[in-house]
Order: sequence, then C-alpha cells, then structure tokens
Amino acid sequence: MHIFRERRLQTFLQNYQNRARLLIACPDQLGIVAAVTSFLYEQGANIVESSQYSTDPQGGTFFLRIEFDCPDMTAKKAEMEKEFAKIAETFEMKWRLSLHNDLKKMAIFVSKEEHCLLELLWEWEAGELLADIAFVISNHEHMRESVEALGIPYYYIPVTKEGKDEAERKQIALLKEHKVDTIVLARYMQILSPAFVAEFPFQIINIHHSFLPAFIGARPYEQAYRRGVKLIGATSHYVTDDLDEGPIIEQDVARVDHRYHPEDLKRVGRIIEKTVLARALKWHLEDRVIIHENKTIVFS
Amino acid sequence: MHIFRERRLQTFLQNYQNRARLLIACPDQLGIVAAVTSFLYEQGANIVESSQYSTDPQGGTFFLRIEFDCPDMTAKKAEMEKEFAKIAETFEMKWRLSLHNDLKKMAIFVSKEEHCLLELLWEWEAGELLADIAFVISNHEHMRESVEALGIPYYYIPVTKEGKDEAERKQIALLKEHKVDTIVLARYMQILSPAFVAEFPFQIINIHHSFLPAFIGARPYEQAYRRGVKLIGATSHYVTDDLDEGPIIEQDVARVDHRYHPEDLKRVGRIIEKTVLARALKWHLEDRVIIHENKTIVFS
Amino acid sequence: MHIFRERRLQTFLQNYQNRARLLIACPDQLGIVAAVTSFLYEQGANIVESSQYSTDPQGGTFFLRIEFDCPDMTAKKAEMEKEFAKIAETFEMKWRLSLHNDLKKMAIFVSKEEHCLLELLWEWEAGELLADIAFVISNHEHMRESVEALGIPYYYIPVTKEGKDEAERKQIALLKEHKVDTIVLARYMQILSPAFVAEFPFQIINIHHSFLPAFIGARPYEQAYRRGVKLIGATSHYVTDDLDEGPIIEQDVARVDHRYHPEDLKRVGRIIEKTVLARALKWHLEDRVIIHENKTIVFS
Amino acid sequence: MHIFRERRLQTFLQNYQNRARLLIACPDQLGIVAAVTSFLYEQGANIVESSQYSTDPQGGTFFLRIEFDCPDMTAKKAEMEKEFAKIAETFEMKWRLSLHNDLKKMAIFVSKEEHCLLELLWEWEAGELLADIAFVISNHEHMRESVEALGIPYYYIPVTKEGKDEAERKQIALLKEHKVDTIVLARYMQILSPAFVAEFPFQIINIHHSFLPAFIGARPYEQAYRRGVKLIGATSHYVTDDLDEGPIIEQDVARVDHRYHPEDLKRVGRIIEKTVLARALKWHLEDRVIIHENKTIVFS
Repeated sequence: MHIFRERRLQTFLQNYQNRARLLIACPDQLGIVAAVTSFLYEQGANIVESSQYSTDPQGGTFFLRIEFDCPDMTAKKAEMEKEFAKIAETFEMKWRLSLHNDLKKMAIFVSKEEHCLLELLWEWEAGELLADIAFVISNHEHMRESVEALGIPYYYIPVTKEGKDEAERKQIALLKEHKVDTIVLARYMQILSPAFVAEFPFQIINIHHSFLPAFIGARPYEQAYRRGVKLIGATSHYVTDDLDEGPIIEQDVARVDHRYHPEDLKRVGRIIEKTVLARALKWHLEDRVIIHENKTIVFS
Repeated sequence: MHIFRERRLQTFLQNYQNRARLLIACPDQLGIVAAVTSFLYEQGANIVESSQYSTDPQGGTFFLRIEFDCPDMTAKKAEMEKEFAKIAETFEMKWRLSLHNDLKKMAIFVSKEEHCLLELLWEWEAGELLADIAFVISNHEHMRESVEALGIPYYYIPVTKEGKDEAERKQIALLKEHKVDTIVLARYMQILSPAFVAEFPFQIINIHHSFLPAFIGARPYEQAYRRGVKLIGATSHYVTDDLDEGPIIEQDVARVDHRYHPEDLKRVGRIIEKTVLARALKWHLEDRVIIHENKTIVFS
Repeated sequence: MHIFRERRLQTFLQNYQNRARLLIACPDQLGIVAAVTSFLYEQGANIVESSQYSTDPQGGTFFLRIEFDCPDMTAKKAEMEKEFAKIAETFEMKWRLSLHNDLKKMAIFVSKEEHCLLELLWEWEAGELLADIAFVISNHEHMRESVEALGIPYYYIPVTKEGKDEAERKQIALLKEHKVDTIVLARYMQILSPAFVAEFPFQIINIHHSFLPAFIGARPYEQAYRRGVKLIGATSHYVTDDLDEGPIIEQDVARVDHRYHPEDLKRVGRIIEKTVLARALKWHLEDRVIIHENKTIVFS
Repeated sequence: MHIFRERRLQTFLQNYQNRARLLIACPDQLGIVAAVTSFLYEQGANIVESSQYSTDPQGGTFFLRIEFDCPDMTAKKAEMEKEFAKIAETFEMKWRLSLHNDLKKMAIFVSKEEHCLLELLWEWEAGELLADIAFVISNHEHMRESVEALGIPYYYIPVTKEGKDEAERKQIALLKEHKVDTIVLARYMQILSPAFVAEFPFQIINIHHSFLPAFIGARPYEQAYRRGVKLIGATSHYVTDDLDEGPIIEQDVARVDHRYHPEDLKRVGRIIEKTVLARALKWHLEDRVIIHENKTIVFS
C-alpha cells in the first residue's frame, strides 16, 4: 500500500503547489475585505475560497479565511508576507499566511481502544488526511505491529501514577524534537497535566465519547446507560486545562434504545467517535478552525 | 376541516374495534410467553404485534406488550380480564388490558410559544393523534382563537408567584372533572409543584428544549450558544419531582454552527421540539412506553 | 395571533431597513471580489455576510452573494445601482441588488393534503417566513376556513381534464394581477402545463414526496413500499418542463422499516415534506439559491 | 492484535454456548406463537429475544425469530429439531434452528477500493463481526499484505473480459471447497454472472455506492453530481440477477452541497458505504434478515 499512498500523495500535492491560505482576525470595521482582496489581486492571486464571520458588525471581531492560487507561490511567500504586514498593521490584524503543501507535523496518542487510530491511519493511507505523521505514542504495546507496518515510528511509554511526570517529560521531548504542532488524542485515556497542555496551546485535539456537555468525565457510556438517553454522541474538542471543557470542533450522534447495554453503546459509539474525530482533524489540518472565546468558528 | 376529521377518525376506529393491547410486567422466568400466548389463542385472538424485553434473563424484570384482534373484543373484555387474572397471579404480573379505541383523555398546557401546540392540533386534525383532547390550558390568552376554532375548550389560567397554588387548584379541578389521564406540557413554561406532579404520576409529558442531560434548567439555547455546541436537541420526558430528570421518551438533534445566535438556535429548535414531542406522545397514547427505574422501554 | 404577528414582523423589519443583498454571476477572473468589495466600501457599506463559489477557477463561472448594511440604503438604492452598473459591465456580470425588506410576493397552491400549507402558514404567522402571501389557490374548498382566518384570500379553482386550460388562465390572471414572483406548490397534485411553467421561470417551487431521482412520478410512497427502501425522503425543487427533473434545492430523509405500509410511509413522509419545503422556501426568499446548469448553488 | 482478538472471541463465545435461534416462516393463522413458545418452554428454554411480523393477519405470511438460552443446547440440538418438526408440519412452517456459536463461513471480494474491506477486517479484529473469514479474493494484489498480516488467506484472481468464466470457476471452486455460505462484495467492481449468483442464492451481500433506486448502474457519484442531489447514500443489498435490484438490507445518507465535486462525494461516500455494509452484514450474520418478495424483513 505504501507506494500506492506515496504516488497518490505526490500527484495530489503537485496540483496544489501554488495554493495558499490567509487567515485573519481583527476588530470589525469597514473596508477589511476590500483591502485584503485588492492586495491579493495586485499579487496576481486568484481567490478559490473565502469565508468570513463577524461576532458583531458593530465593534465585534472579524474573521477571514481566504484560499487562493498564486503563480510561484512558494518563492513569493516571504515577499508577500512583508507586503501584507503593512495592511495588517492598519487594521490591527492577527494573521497567518500558510502554504497548502506545508503539511502539519502530527503525533497520535492512543491507549487500548484502537478504532480511532486505525481510522486515522486508513484515511492517511488513502491520502485523505493531509498531515505528516511523526509518530504514534501509546501506553500500551499492542498497536506497534499495525503502526510500524505503515513505516510510522511507535513509542511505547507506559504511564504509572508515580511515573506520570517522567512519562510526560519523555513525550514532550519527542514532540519538541520532531517539531510536532498537532497532537491527536485518539482515545488516549491518560489525563494530561496542565504543564503538558500549556506546552501545546490549542494544538491538542481530543475525542470525547459523549455528546458534551452531557456526561463529562469518566465512563460516559455507563452514564448514558443509567440516564436512559435515546441518542449517544461523540465530541471532538481542543484540550484545555478544564477537562472536557475545551472549544468544541465537531459532534455527532447515533440512535440507541432501551435494549442497548453499555457494551452495545460502546460498539455504536466507536463508529461515531472515529468519524467525528477524523472530520474535526481534517478541518484543523486545513486551517479551517478558529478559536474565539472557548468556541470554534469552523469554515468547513 | 372538522367534518373531514370526524369522518377520517370514524372510518379509522371502525377498522380497530376488535383491536386490544395487553401490557405485562413481571419477574422473568420460564413459560411466560407460552402461558400468555396460549391464553390468547384459546380466546380466539390473533396476535398482530408482540414486543418483549427483559432487564436480565436471570432474575430480571420481564416486559411484554401484545397487540391482538379478537372477535367481539369490546363485549368480551370484562370476561377476558377475569380469566387472565389467574395467569397473572401465578406469574406475579402487573398487567393491563386496553381497547385500541378507548382513547386517552388528554389536556394540553401551553404558554407563549405556540409551535408545539399547533403541531399537536394539526396531527389531531389529521386523525394521526389518537386522543380525546379535553381542553387546552394556558397562562396566556393569545391561542384561544386557534384552539376554539377546532371546537376545543380553552382555559386561560394566569399564573403569578402568589397565585400559583390557586392556579394549580383550578387546573387540577378541571383535569379531575374531565378525567384527564394524559397531560402534555407543550412548551408550558411554569414549573409544576410536587403536589401537582404527585396527582398525575407518569401522566405528564414535557418537551425540554435541549438534548438532556445537557443544559438542564432555564434558557438552554443560551447555554448551548455559550458552550458552542455543534448540534442542538430536544427531549421529551415524563415529569417527575426532579426538574428535567424524568424518564426520557424520545430525543432528536439538528446541526448548527458558529453563525447561529440564540434566536437562530430557537428557530431551528422549534422544529425538533414539535417533532420529538409529537413522536413521544404518539407512543404514549398507544401504550408503547413502559417506565422502569427512571428509564423508558419504548416498544415503537 | 394577527396583531402578534404584525408586531413581531414590524420590529423585525425595523432592524433590517438598511440591509441589502448583492447577487452576482460572471465569468471567473482575477479581481472580481476586490472590485465589488472596494465599491461597497466606498459606498460606506458594511459587509455582514459574503458567500462565493466558482464552478472552475480556470474560466468557469463565478457566483457571489454579499449581504451588507448601508446608511439610508432605501434612499441610496437607485444611485448605487447606477454606480455599480459600470463595474458590472467590465466584468460582464449578471447581477441584482435587492433590499432585505422588499419581501417577495408569494402564492401557495394546495390540493387535499394540508400539512405543507399549514407549516408555511404557521412559520409565516411566527414571523419566520419573510414573504408577502398574496393568496392561496386550491382545487378543493376544505382549507378556506383556516386560510381566511389568517386574513389571506383563498381562491377555489377546481381543475377538470377539459377545464384545465381555463383553470390555468384564471390562476395566471390572479398571479399577474398580484405581481406574484414566488409560487409554492405545497402538495398541489395537478401537473402544470409547459405554458404555465414558462410564465414563471424558476419562480415555482415544488415539494416532491420522494428522495429524487428515486421514485419519479406518481405515488412515490407506493413505489418506495414496493422497492422496500429503508429510508424515505422528500425533495424540494424548482419546477421545469421535465416533471420532477428541475434543480433540487433541498432534500431530507427519515428511517423506515418493513413494518411500514404505504399509509405509514405517508405519515412519516409528511413531516419530512413540510420541513424540507419550508427550508428550501426560506433560502429562496432570502435570495440564497442560485440556479446553474439545472443544479442549485445554495448559500445557506 | 491476534492473540488479543482470539482471547476476546473465546470469552465472548463462552457466554453464548447455550444460545440458539429459531427462524420460522408460515401461513399466518391462530396459535403459532403459542405452539412455538410452549414447545420451547417444555424444552426448558428461556426466550431472550422474540420478533415477529405478518404481511397480513388475514391469510398473509407470518415470520418469527426467537433467540433463546437452553441448557446443553449443543447436545440437545438434534433431538430438539426432531421434536419441533412435528409442530412445524402442522403449521406448514419453513424453519431453521441454529446455534449462536456456529459462525457463518465468509468470503470477502474486493477490488481497488479498500475502505470497506478494512472496516470489516477491523470489526472482525475487534471481535464485533462474528464470522469465520475463510479468505479474501481480489482482482488486484495491493491488499495482500494487510490481509495476510491478519492470518487470512488472500487469493489474487485477475478478471479479464475473456478470462471471466475461468476466473469465476476458480472463485466458485474456492468457495465450495471452504464451504463458504456468505459472500461479501466489499466494493468488488466485477459484475457476477447469473451462473455465479445462482450458486449462492441470497448469500451474496453487496454495497452499492448510491441511495438505491437512485443512480442504478455505473459511476453513481458522477450521476449524483450531475443531478445535483443534496444527500448522497449507500445501499447494502442481496445480489440477484437484476443488477442493483436485489432486496435492500440497509441504507444511509450524508449531506453534501454544490461545492462537492465527484471526488468529494466519493470521499464522503466511503464513510457511509463501509458503515452501511458493516451494519447489514452484522444483521445477516445474526440471522436477523428474512427475504420476502424481493424485500427484507430485518429484526434488528
């Protein structure tokens, strides 16, 4: 399958070597779009996608995401940034210009449950998950075979109560060394310390196996069973210090009924979990997710 | 439309005058189904639908709902009950035999928001909601016209902090007088007192405008907006003393995104609320909902 | 309810008296967005929503919908249009500028089944359907009461094989007289003649009671029953000469199973039909639907 | 993972060694359920699940599926069948008694697209797909590695226009040799000959990448793109001589819009295809699917 994947990926990236994304956040006022689009026009860029949102046309925050094609984009990037900085200053913009083909550096954390990891690996193989997977970290050994078979390094880092700090030190070292900017908790059942989270602000994506804010915390399927809900769900969100309280990226649900015991809820839940996580991650990798006041703006 | 409705309803009930339902709950053990179905066979009954559920084959509770046709059912009912009592005794059954055409006596409570009431009235008009609507009670006047136009009595009972007990006394009097056995809170925004609830155990169906247990209590759409959920929902449940904690009958959700302000969430929510309530109510009216340990078994 | 509705509507329109929409379609090329947004900026307009789509960045068609607020919009409109015409010319634009509060003139056609009509009337009452309902036309009398109760004229125009042309002449006369620009077929079971359709190109919205292109033509629920599908659907589309082949605006489905007879499919289908039609109509009324090569671009 | 899987599976099967299923189809008449359940009672069986359906209480066909636990079930089976044959005769029953742990013998056919195969393999690994996978057949080589890694034989049987009969002969030989009773076409893009289909009546399950009966035949996503549908779907059905016309087991859909090109529809479709196929297959493996007049009754 590897050669397969590589070939697919290469042809794919070929088509997008002149594609770039401009993300902007600034106080809402007149003329922002005009200024930005005029700039891109002068640069010879062709806008292929544009999304905007304002928290409040009167003095709110304005968000803009523009995807465009521009000849010799890679060569031009530095110059373009220098030029755009002037506009950015007048509008007090927070902004970022990134190339479509600068793939994010991703690490996947997993524990016993493998369905989310396998889904991500499959989509990655299929060339649908545009990321550079640096490695997989697990506090269990059992997935090594499947991961290494794809040529992805697998680090087994067991986590014990006492050894937790030590384990996190190892993890952080690996993440820094490989310049990882996106960490996916694919059913990683260890709670990360505030120190760890602080190292990667809004770079850690988790899949919680409930429709948040329902059933926060441990064993959500057991909670759902006890409450007798008729739908179960999954939620993918950025990890913050408040457990399960980070900005929600995506959610979905599936129908269940009184015949479902916790084991059945888990079985059905796995399908939702992996689908929701894959969807949220895709948007994150394409810079479609903007965080604002503990909520996400998703330009899907 | 009235004549329309009456005609539809009559022809409909005609077809079901020999249809009855037997509901049973008892300790699980061998031979229950055999005993019940043999009895029905001897009675000349033809089983058209049968649903069963056991909380645990080893010493759990067994639930059975059988719908059957039997010649001269109406005439036979009393005798049949007398006969079945013997079987019921041997298996320690809680049970109920009811005629399909013995419609439940229903009262609808509503406040300002009319969408749920209108949905129920429309389905009732269309002959799809098989109930006998005794009257509508509201703490507002504005729906009188639409309700009375359908020949349904409308009682305006304002509720003030001080006057609450008095209002509930009036409501209970009306409900008792009309022998109401099913009370629907179709977006009735007054919290019923424990005394009121105790008068109608598991006979009060509410529609809560959130995907419970998320956003319990007041202003759920504002709560959902603040949390930034990507799906909003509605939950229909039986009313108990614990606010929004009663057995859930049905739930559903709809997709939203960052552009939805609370007003938009409410707009989308109305569609879910009325659909979910109508679905839950239909099951209740057809004796398809069984309550067990604050959960529902729905033989839909 | 009327006074209610009027009050709601007035306050609502108040808030949007300076809101306008600019719709554009033109050959894709560099600089379109820059030119348009710069123009709006010079006019002192604040863009509150912007959606764009290109069938193909290389020589395809580009579509743009911008919603903006501008001081004294109503007074300014004519002048603004005169100014914009110059830009439009350079880019060979097809375009339209419309005021948010210039409500569309709508007529609703209905036959025996009333659920879609009632849904639209309710949403209109609730101030959610921003249209000016000129009248309802039906080939049956039974909905007169409910419609006239809302102060909406009701025209009973029976349709017989021989009398069809005559009936359509009457209908067209009424539609022209009231300057109707949006015709909703809310389960109107008469097939309109090509001549009629030609009079109102892409101004007629129909709800078809199946998931098109499955089950084109008559009695779709019977067709669905025979095929044994596990989901049934509804499709709202613009009416063209090809029966059920017009551009699709919106679709949705609901789950069914082997126990559903055609009557049950119809019952479930009604909920989907009215929801889908209401959603499609809302987008149409807000100029969010653009037709291109027998497909729709929906800027929802 | 293997040991993992084996362990899970063994413990699982342990719990069900006394679990059996009785499937019955016969002309509807009084007393069927009574007779069957009385028989099971005498055998000391405890009914844990019972589903029934009648095409028409007056002279239709009656279907019954009962799942029960019985001490020493395996030892008892032959005797029980001999006994039940008498009842079966009086009611003219077509019937089958099977042990929960007699897993079906399954073969998976696949072509280029691997997502459905991978989903099935994963669920099988996870011990959720209770079948005995005899082998995988493909007209391509690229999945050999992944399949053999799980200890499952992989047969590469290329199919050319001229060599088709020869290829099918090889396939049939393998299927017969391994006594395969369930063939899954997991996106196998070769059309099977009537001769092949005749060899395995209602034992071949296919996943069609459209919401049948919409977009029958080749390239459904391209068809869907041209028609401009707002939902795409997938359909799992039994294979008959009429292409894509066999009894439907399960269907589902996902929302799309005008921005989706055929490639995007395919990407979204893959998720639905694999989910729908897995769901349908699970029901088939648990004997929950009954075929009647080219439709399925699914006792899910």
